[in-house]
Amino acid sequence: DFLNALNEVKPAFGADDEELQDAFPYGIIHFSNSIKAILNDGMLAVESVRVQEKIRHTSVLLHGPSASGKTALAAHIAMKSDFPFIKLITPASMVGFRDELAKKDYLHKIFTDAYKSPLSMLIIDNLERMIEWNPVGPRLSNPMIQTLITLLQTPPPKGHRLLILATTSQRSVMEQLDITTAFDRQIPVPAVQDLRELGAILEKTGAFPTPADVNEALNAVRSYSNSDTVGVGIKTILTTAETSKLSAEPSEWFAEQIAQQITRYRS
Amino acid sequence: DFLNALNEVKPAFGADDEELQDAFPYGIIHFSNSIKAILNDGMLAVESVRVQEKIRHTSVLLHGPSASGKTALAAHIAMKSDFPFIKLITPASMVGFRDELAKKDYLHKIFTDAYKSPLSMLIIDNLERMIEWNPVGPRLSNPMIQTLITLLQTPPPKGHRLLILATTSQRSVMEQLDITTAFDRQIPVPAVQDLRELGAILEKTGAFPTPADVNEALNAVRSYSNSDTVGVGIKTILTTAETSKLSAEPSEWFAEQIAQQITRYRS
Amino acid sequence: DFLNALNEVKPAFGADDEELQDAFPYGIIHFSNSIKAILNDGMLAVESVRVQEKIRHTSVLLHGPSASGKTALAAHIAMKSDFPFIKLITPASMVGFRDELAKKDYLHKIFTDAYKSPLSMLIIDNLERMIEWNPVGPRLSNPMIQTLITLLQTPPPKGHRLLILATTSQRSVMEQLDITTAFDRQIPVPAVQDLRELGAILEKTGAFPTPADVNEALNAVRSYSNSDTVGVGIKTILTTAETSKLSAEPSEWFAEQIAQQITRYRS
Amino acid sequence: DFLNALNEVKPAFGADDEELQDAFPYGIIHFSNSIKAILNDGMLAVESVRVQEKIRHTSVLLHGPSASGKTALAAHIAMKSDFPFIKLITPASMVGFRDELAKKDYLHKIFTDAYKSPLSMLIIDNLERMIEWNPVGPRLSNPMIQTLITLLQTPPPKGHRLLILATTSQRSVMEQLDITTAFDRQIPVPAVQDLRELGAILEKTGAFPTPADVNEALNAVRSYSNSDTVGVGIKTILTTAETSKLSAEPSEWFAEQIAQQITRYRS
Amino acid sequence: DFLNALNEVKPAFGADDEELQDAFPYGIIHFSNSIKAILNDGMLAVESVRVQEKIRHTSVLLHGPSASGKTALAAHIAMKSDFPFIKLITPASMVGFRDELAKKDYLHKIFTDAYKSPLSMLIIDNLERMIEWNPVGPRLSNPMIQTLITLLQTPPPKGHRLLILATTSQRSVMEQLDITTAFDRQIPVPAVQDLRELGAILEKTGAFPTPADVNEALNAVRSYSNSDTVGVGIKTILTTAETSKLSAEPSEWFAEQIAQQITRYRS
Amino acid sequence: DFLNALNEVKPAFGADDEELQDAFPYGIIHFSNSIKAILNDGMLAVESVRVQEKIRHTSVLLHGPSASGKTALAAHIAMKSDFPFIKLITPASMVGFRDELAKKDYLHKIFTDAYKSPLSMLIIDNLERMIEWNPVGPRLSNPMIQTLITLLQTPPPKGHRLLILATTSQRSVMEQLDITTAFDRQIPVPAVQDLRELGAILEKTGAFPTPADVNEALNAVRSYSNSDTVGVGIKTILTTAETSKLSAEPSEWFAEQIAQQITRYRS
Ligand SMILES: Nc1ncnc2c1ncn2[C@@H]1O[C@H](COP(=O)(O)OP(=O)(O)OP(=O)(O)O)[C@@H](O)[C@H]1O
Ligand SMILES: Nc1ncnc2c1ncn2[C@@H]1O[C@H](COP(=O)(O)OP(=O)(O)OP(=O)(O)O)[C@@H](O)[C@H]1O
Ligand SMILES: Nc1ncnc2c1ncn2[C@@H]1O[C@H](COP(=O)(O)OP(=O)(O)OP(=O)(O)O)[C@@H](O)[C@H]1O
Ligand SMILES: Nc1ncnc2c1ncn2[C@@H]1O[C@H](COP(=O)(O)OP(=O)(O)OP(=O)(O)O)[C@@H](O)[C@H]1O
Ligand SMILES: Nc1ncnc2c1ncn2[C@@H]1O[C@H](COP(=O)(O)OP(=O)(O)OP(=O)(O)O)[C@@H](O)[C@H]1O
Ligand SMILES: Nc1ncnc2c1ncn2[C@@H]1O[C@H](COP(=O)(O)OP(=O)(O)OP(=O)(O)O)[C@@H](O)[C@H]1O
Ligand SMILES: [Mg+2]
Ligand SMILES: [Mg+2]
Ligand SMILES: [Mg+2]
Ligand SMILES: [Mg+2]
Ligand SMILES: [Mg+2]
Ligand SMILES: [Mg+2]
Repeated sequence: DFLNALNEVKPAFGADDEELQDAFPYGIIHFSNSIKAILNDGMLAVESVRVQEKIRHTSVLLHGPSASGKTALAAHIAMKSDFPFIKLITPASMVGFRDELAKKDYLHKIFTDAYKSPLSMLIIDNLERMIEWNPVGPRLSNPMIQTLITLLQTPPPKGHRLLILATTSQRSVMEQLDITTAFDRQIPVPAVQDLRELGAILEKTGAFPTPADVNEALNAVRSYSNSDTVGVGIKTILTTAETSKLSAEPSEWFAEQIAQQITRYRS
Repeated sequence: DFLNALNEVKPAFGADDEELQDAFPYGIIHFSNSIKAILNDGMLAVESVRVQEKIRHTSVLLHGPSASGKTALAAHIAMKSDFPFIKLITPASMVGFRDELAKKDYLHKIFTDAYKSPLSMLIIDNLERMIEWNPVGPRLSNPMIQTLITLLQTPPPKGHRLLILATTSQRSVMEQLDITTAFDRQIPVPAVQDLRELGAILEKTGAFPTPADVNEALNAVRSYSNSDTVGVGIKTILTTAETSKLSAEPSEWFAEQIAQQITRYRS
Repeated sequence: DFLNALNEVKPAFGADDEELQDAFPYGIIHFSNSIKAILNDGMLAVESVRVQEKIRHTSVLLHGPSASGKTALAAHIAMKSDFPFIKLITPASMVGFRDELAKKDYLHKIFTDAYKSPLSMLIIDNLERMIEWNPVGPRLSNPMIQTLITLLQTPPPKGHRLLILATTSQRSVMEQLDITTAFDRQIPVPAVQDLRELGAILEKTGAFPTPADVNEALNAVRSYSNSDTVGVGIKTILTTAETSKLSAEPSEWFAEQIAQQITRYRS
Repeated sequence: DFLNALNEVKPAFGADDEELQDAFPYGIIHFSNSIKAILNDGMLAVESVRVQEKIRHTSVLLHGPSASGKTALAAHIAMKSDFPFIKLITPASMVGFRDELAKKDYLHKIFTDAYKSPLSMLIIDNLERMIEWNPVGPRLSNPMIQTLITLLQTPPPKGHRLLILATTSQRSVMEQLDITTAFDRQIPVPAVQDLRELGAILEKTGAFPTPADVNEALNAVRSYSNSDTVGVGIKTILTTAETSKLSAEPSEWFAEQIAQQITRYRS
Repeated sequence: DFLNALNEVKPAFGADDEELQDAFPYGIIHFSNSIKAILNDGMLAVESVRVQEKIRHTSVLLHGPSASGKTALAAHIAMKSDFPFIKLITPASMVGFRDELAKKDYLHKIFTDAYKSPLSMLIIDNLERMIEWNPVGPRLSNPMIQTLITLLQTPPPKGHRLLILATTSQRSVMEQLDITTAFDRQIPVPAVQDLRELGAILEKTGAFPTPADVNEALNAVRSYSNSDTVGVGIKTILTTAETSKLSAEPSEWFAEQIAQQITRYRS
Repeated sequence: DFLNALNEVKPAFGADDEELQDAFPYGIIHFSNSIKAILNDGMLAVESVRVQEKIRHTSVLLHGPSASGKTALAAHIAMKSDFPFIKLITPASMVGFRDELAKKDYLHKIFTDAYKSPLSMLIIDNLERMIEWNPVGPRLSNPMIQTLITLLQTPPPKGHRLLILATTSQRSVMEQLDITTAFDRQIPVPAVQDLRELGAILEKTGAFPTPADVNEALNAVRSYSNSDTVGVGIKTILTTAETSKLSAEPSEWFAEQIAQQITRYRS
C-alpha cells in the first residue's frame, strides 16, 4: 500500500528503521506500569498531530535522569508512528560542525526539510548538549537556544504537520532557560525505582542463568546499599549486567557496581 | 476602488490577508469586555496615524502572559486597518539569518521598505525573541536592542506615516531594558480570568457537544484547582479543548490539563 | 550677501534648514523663563566659538528628562547660529552601520568634514544611544565612548572653529562614564514643572477650542494626579493634546493620559 | 599471523610501540598492590570491548595526583592490548593548532579514523589541558568540552569497537563540569603512600648503590618531613633519584627534595 | 651647527615646534614654585638620557588632576630639550585606527622609528585614553596595556637613547594596573591651589583690565565658594577667563563659573 | 674544537653572547651569599640536562621582586653553559605580533627550533607579560597559558635535550594559575636585604668616589627610612647610583630616592 511504498524510500527523507532501532539495542522491557503510560502518551501526541484540524504541530519533552531510557522510548514511538518523514537529531550528528552558527543552520535546514513532508517527526536528542550547556559559568549557546525555542513554537506551512519529540536529563536547566514553556507537553521518564523493578528487568532479560542467581544479585545489592530503592537508569542496569558476564563472580560484581551507582545518585 | 486595487498588489509589499489570518486560526472570541476595549484602543492608534497632522508615527506595545492572544489581536487589528502596507515580523522569519547583525540589517531593511509606502503598519511579534533574550546570564543582543529602540523612535520621512504594533510576554524585561519608554502607548492583553469567562469560550466555540458537557468540564476544573480563578491564556484553552476530543473522556481530560496549567501559573 | 550665499550651498556641507526644522514640528513655545535662559546660554556658546582668540572649540551638553525638548532646542540654536557648516548626528542616521567600528569611523569622518569648514557646528543627538548603552549588564560600546571623549576634547586645526552640542536623557550614566568631564559646559532642560506651565502651553498652542476647555483639562489632571506638579516633557504634552482631538471627550482623555505619565515619572 | 600482519602496518594507523614505550621511560614498578589492580581493571575494559555483544564502546578515566603514573599506566595497558589501532592524543600533539576550533576538528578527525578500524583504542591524555582549563576565571574551552562529552558517549558504527582511556589530575574539575558522567568507569591512580612503598621503589630501581644508602635516604626523608606518609607521585620520586646522582651527597639531597614535595602537597 | 641642521629636517622625524607649541597656547605661567620644580625634574631626565653611560632609556610619568597643565609642561620640556627626534602621541592621533590592534601596531611603529635616531623623545599623552579605559566595567584594552608596559621597559638598541614622557589624570587607575611600576620616575602636576595662586595667574595674563577687577573676581570666588582653596586646573582658569570677556559682567561671571568648578572637584 | 666551531655559528641558531651580555650591563656583583647559591643551582640544572640518561628536559623558574636581577642571572647562567643553542625570549621580542595566537605560534616555533639542536637552552623572560596578565579583571591570555604549560612539560624528541629558564616577579599569580607546577624546580632571587648588602654594592661598583661618601649615603638612607632593611632590587640601586652622579649632591639625592623606594615596597 501507499504507506509501505513511502517507507521504502524513507531513508532518503530521514532516519531508516535500522538507525532508530540502534537506539534501543536491548529492546523495550516493560518493567513497570510507567513504561506503558509513557508509550500511550507518546502515541496520543502522534495521533493528535495526524488528525487534528487546527493544530498543525505539537512538541513533547521526554525528561528524566541519565540512562533512564529517554532516547530509546522516543525512537520506539517514532518507529511505531509510521510517519513518512522521521529524523533523529543527535549531538553526535552535529559534532563535526564548526561552531554554534553552523549547528544552528543545520538545525534550521532539518526543520525546513521536515516542512516539505505532509507528516513529519523530529527527535531532538539531548537538549542540554544541543545548547552546549556546561554547569560552570554558566556557558551555553544563546543562538542555539533562540533557534530551538523559535522552531519549537513555529507551525509548519499549511497542509503540513509536524511532531517534535525532545529528550533531556537536565530539566531544571531547561526550566531556568524558559525552554520548557516552548513545549506543549512533558513526559517524565523515571529511573528504575526499587528492587522489585530491578528483579523484573533481570528476569526478563535473562541476564543471569537461574532465578537463584537473580535473587543472589538482588540480595547483594540490598546489603551493599542498605536500601530497597534503586534510582539508577535502565541503561546502566543492562550494560552492567552484560559486562558482569565477563567477571569471575557475575552476580557479586554486578551488585557491587550497581550499589556504587545507587550511592552516587542518592547523594 | 483604489483601496481594493492596492489590496490586490499587497502581497508584493508585505503580508497578505491569508498570512495575517493564519495568526488567529480560532478567530477572535469575545469572551470578556476587555477584548472590545483592546480592539478599540488598537483602532484608535490606526486612526490617529492615518489622520493626525504633526505626528507621523505611533508605536504600541501589546503585552500579556503567554498564549493570551497578543499576536492574534495584533493581526486582527492589522487586517481591519486596510493599510496598503502591512508586514508581520516574527522570530520565525528571522531564524535563518546568520547572526544578530544580519537580523539587525533585515529589520532595518523592513523599516526602509515601510517608509516607501504612504501608510504602513509593522507588527513586531515577540520582542523578547527579537532581542535574543534568555533569563540566565543575562544574555541578549545589544545590537538588536539599540536598533529596535532607534527605529521605534524614528519618524518616517515627510509624507509617510507608520504604525508599529509589537507584542511581548516579558514586559518586565522590556521595562528593565528601557525598551518600553520607546513606545507611545501600551495595551495589556489579559489571560482568561475566571470560570465564567472560560465557560463563555467553551460555549462560543462549541468545543463540547452540550451545555451539560461544558458544565461538567467547568465543575471538574473547579474541583481540580480548588478555585474560580483561571489565569490561563485563551490559546491554551482552545488547543487543549481541541485535543481533548481525541481523548476517551474529553471533559475530564480537558479539566485535568487546564487545572495543571492553572496550578503552574499560579505559582 | 556672503552668508546667504553660503546658506544656499549648505546642504552639500551638512544639515539644511528643513532637516533642522523637522526637529521641532511644534515650534518653540515659551512656557517658562527657563526656555529663554537655555537659548541665551546656547547663543553665548555660539558667539564664544565665533570670536574667541585662543579657544578654537567648545562643547555643550543639553541634558534633561525624556521628551523635555532637548533635540528641538539644539536644532533651534543651530538654525539661529547661521554657521556655514551644521550637521545633525542622530542614532537613526547610524542605524544602518554594521557595528560599533563602522559607527566610530562614521563619527570620525563627520568630525573630519567639520574640520574643513572655518566655522562648524555638530549636534550629537542622544548620547546614550550613540554609545549603545542599555541598563542591564552594563553593556555599552567602549570604542564609541573612547572616540566620543577624544573627539570632544580635540580642537580643530588652526584657522578652524567648532561648536559641539550634544543631548542626553541619561546624565547620570554620562557622569559614571566620565563623559561629562569632556564637555566644557552643561545646560539642563527641565520637564514641564506644574499646572501653570501646562496651562501656558495649552493656551499658546490652541490645543483646546476655549479657555474653559483648557481649565477643564487642567482641573481633570489635578484631580487624577492629586497634585500641582507635572514633571512630564513638553513633547508628550503636545502629542497627547494632538491625539486627544480624535477622542470623543478630548479634555477628559488628555487629562487621563497625562495623569498616567505624571504618576509613572513620579515613582 | 593476521594480528602480526596488522601490527606491522600499525604506525600508519596510530601509535607505534616506541611512542607508547616513551611514555614510561622507567618501566612499571610494582611498588604496591594497587598497581596490579589498576592493570587488571584496565585489561577487563580491554576484554569487554573486544568480546561483548551489545556494547560497542567503553570509556575509562584514570585519575590521580600529579606525577602518579597515569599516562604510563594507560600506555602500558594499550601496549598489552594488541589492538590494531591505538592512538595517543596528548596536549603536545595539539599545541600547534591555531585555536579551540582547530583542536576540536582534529579530535573529531582522530575519532573518525578510529571508527574505520574494527577494534580501536584512543588514549586522551591530560583532559584538563584538552579543555584548556585554568583555575582563574574560570576559563575553559566550551567547544572542546562539548565535543569531548559527545564523542565519549557516541558508539562507533556497527561492526566497530572502541575503547577510550583518558587521564586527568583534576578530577574535581571534571566532576564540576559533568564530564565524569560521560565515562563508563573510573580508575584511581594513587601517589606513593608511605615510606614502605618509597623503599620498595628505591630498591627495585637500584637508585642508590646499597640497601644502607636506601635506608639512609628513607630515614632522612622521615626526619625532614616528620612523618611516614609520602603522598608524592612516582614520577617525581624517580626523576629526583636520578638527578640526585649528580649531587655531592645523593641520599641527603634526595631526601631534602622529596621532603619539600611532601610538605608542599600536604598543605 | 649640526644640531641646527638636524632641527631643520625635524618635521620629517617627528613633531615640529609648531605642533609642540600648540599644546600650550597660553604659554607657561610661573604662578607657583612647583612649576619651576617640575621643569627642573623634567630637564634632569633629559640630561640623564643624554649623557649617562649604562642607562639608555628613562621613562617619566606626569600625573595630576584634569586641566592642571600636564600636556603643556611635557611639550615645553620637549621643546627645550633640542632632541633631534621628538614625537607627540595623542589619543586624537589614534582615533582613526580601526581597533586596539591597529593602535598597538601604530604605537610599536612609533617606537621603532624613535629607535632609529641616536637621541629620541616620545610624549605619550593621556595614558587612560591610550588604554581605552572607562570607569564602568571595568573595561580597557589589554593589548594596549601589555604593549605600553613592554615598550616602556625596553631599552633602545645600543648606540641609541630614548626619553619617554607620559601624562595621565588617572594615576590610581595606573597604579591598580601596575603600569606605574614600568616608569622610572613620577612628577606630580598640581592644580591651582589657592586664591593667591589664582591671583598671580590673573595678574600675569592680564585677563582683567585692572588690579581692582582681579580683586573683585577673587573676592567673588571666595564668597561663592566659602573658601580660600581652589583646586581647579590652570587650563580651566585660563579658558574661563577668556570666555568671561564676552559676558556682560566679566569678573562676576568668571567667579560664578570657577566657584562651580571648585565645588564640583571638592566633592 | 667542535664546541668552538658550533659557537661560531651560534648567532644563526639563537642568542649571541652580546645579546646575553646586554642583559647584565652592570655585570654580576657578589653582594651576598645568595648570589653564589643561585648560580650553583642554575649550573646544576645545566649539568643535569647535559648528562642525565632518562631525563631529557628540565625547567627552572627564577622568581623574585622587581629589579632583583632575575634576567641578569638567567642570562649569566646561559653564557656560562656553553650550550650550542641558546635563545632569550623576551616580551619585547613579541610586541610586534598581532595577537595572542600569533605569539603562541611564535613560542611554539622557537621550541620546535630548539628541538633540532642536541642541547638547547631557552630563557623565557617575564612570564607575567608572556601571558598578558594584568591585575584588574583578571585578564590574561589563556592560549598563552595553555601553550606555556604544555611546552614546559613536553620533552624534546629522543636524542635531544632542553633546559628552560623562566623569570617572573609575580610568583603568586603563577601559583594561582597552576603554572608553577609545570616547573621542575624554583630558584628565589631576593632583593637587596639590608644596609650591609647595600654598602657592599656601593663599594664594589665604585658608585661614590670615597668610602666616606658611601657611608654618608648609607647613613642618609637609614635616617630617611628609619630602618636597616632595604628590600629594593639591585637594578634600582645601580641605576639610581648612576643617575645620582648628575645631581648636585649625589649621596643625598641617592639616599632620598632609595628611601622612597624602601617606603613604597614596605607598604
Ligand atoms: N522500558 C525501557 N525504556 C527505555 N529503554 C529500555 C527499556 N527497556 C530496555 N531499554 C533499553 O535501555 C537502554 C536505554 O538507553 P537510552 O540511551 O535510551 O537512555 P537515555 O535515558 O537516553 O540515556 P542518556 O541519559 O545517556 O541519554 C536502551 O538500550 C534500551 O534498549
Ligand atoms: N479574543 C481573543 N483574543 C485573542 N485570541 C483569540 C481570541 N479568541 C480566540 N483567539 C484565538 O486564540 C489564539 C491566540 O493565540 P496567540 O498566538 O495570538 O497568543 P499569544 O499571546 O500571541 O501567544 P504567545 O505568548 O505564545 O506569543 C489564536 O488562535 C486566536 O484565534
Ligand atoms: N520650549 C520648547 N522647548 C523644546 N521643545 C519645544 C518647546 N516648545 C515646543 N516644543 C516642541 O516639543 C517637542 C520637543 O521634542 P524633542 O524631540 O526635542 O524632545 P527631546 O527631549 O529631544 O526628547 P527625547 O528625550 O525623546 O530625545 C518638539 O516637537 C518641539 O517642537
Ligand atoms: N607502577 C608505576 N605506575 C606508573 N608509572 C610508573 C610505575 N613505575 C614506574 N613508573 C614510571 O613513573 C613515571 C610515571 O610518569 P607519568 O608521566 O605516567 O605520570 P603522570 O601521572 O601521567 O604525570 P602527570 O600528572 O604529569 O601527567 C614513568 O616514567 C613510568 O615509567
Ligand atoms: N605653568 C603652567 N603649566 C601648565 N600649563 C600652563 C601653565 N601656565 C599656563 N598654562 C596653560 O595652561 C594650559 C594647560 O593645559 P593642558 O592641556 O596642558 O592641561 P592638561 O593637564 O594636559 O589637561 P587634561 O587633563 O585635559 O589633559 C595650556 O593652555 C597652557 O598654555
Ligand atoms: N648579583 C647580581 N644579580 C643580578 N643582577 C646583578 C647582580 N649584580 C649586578 N647586577 C646588575 O643588576 C641588574 C639586574 O637587572 P635585571 O633586569 O636582571 O633585573 P630583573 O629582576 O630582571 O628586573 P625586572 O623585575 O624588571 O625584570 C643588571 O644590570 C645586572 O648587571
Ligand atoms: Mg539519551
Ligand atoms: Mg504570540
Ligand atoms: Mg531628543
Ligand atoms: Mg600524564
Ligand atoms: Mg592633557
Ligand atoms: Mg627581568
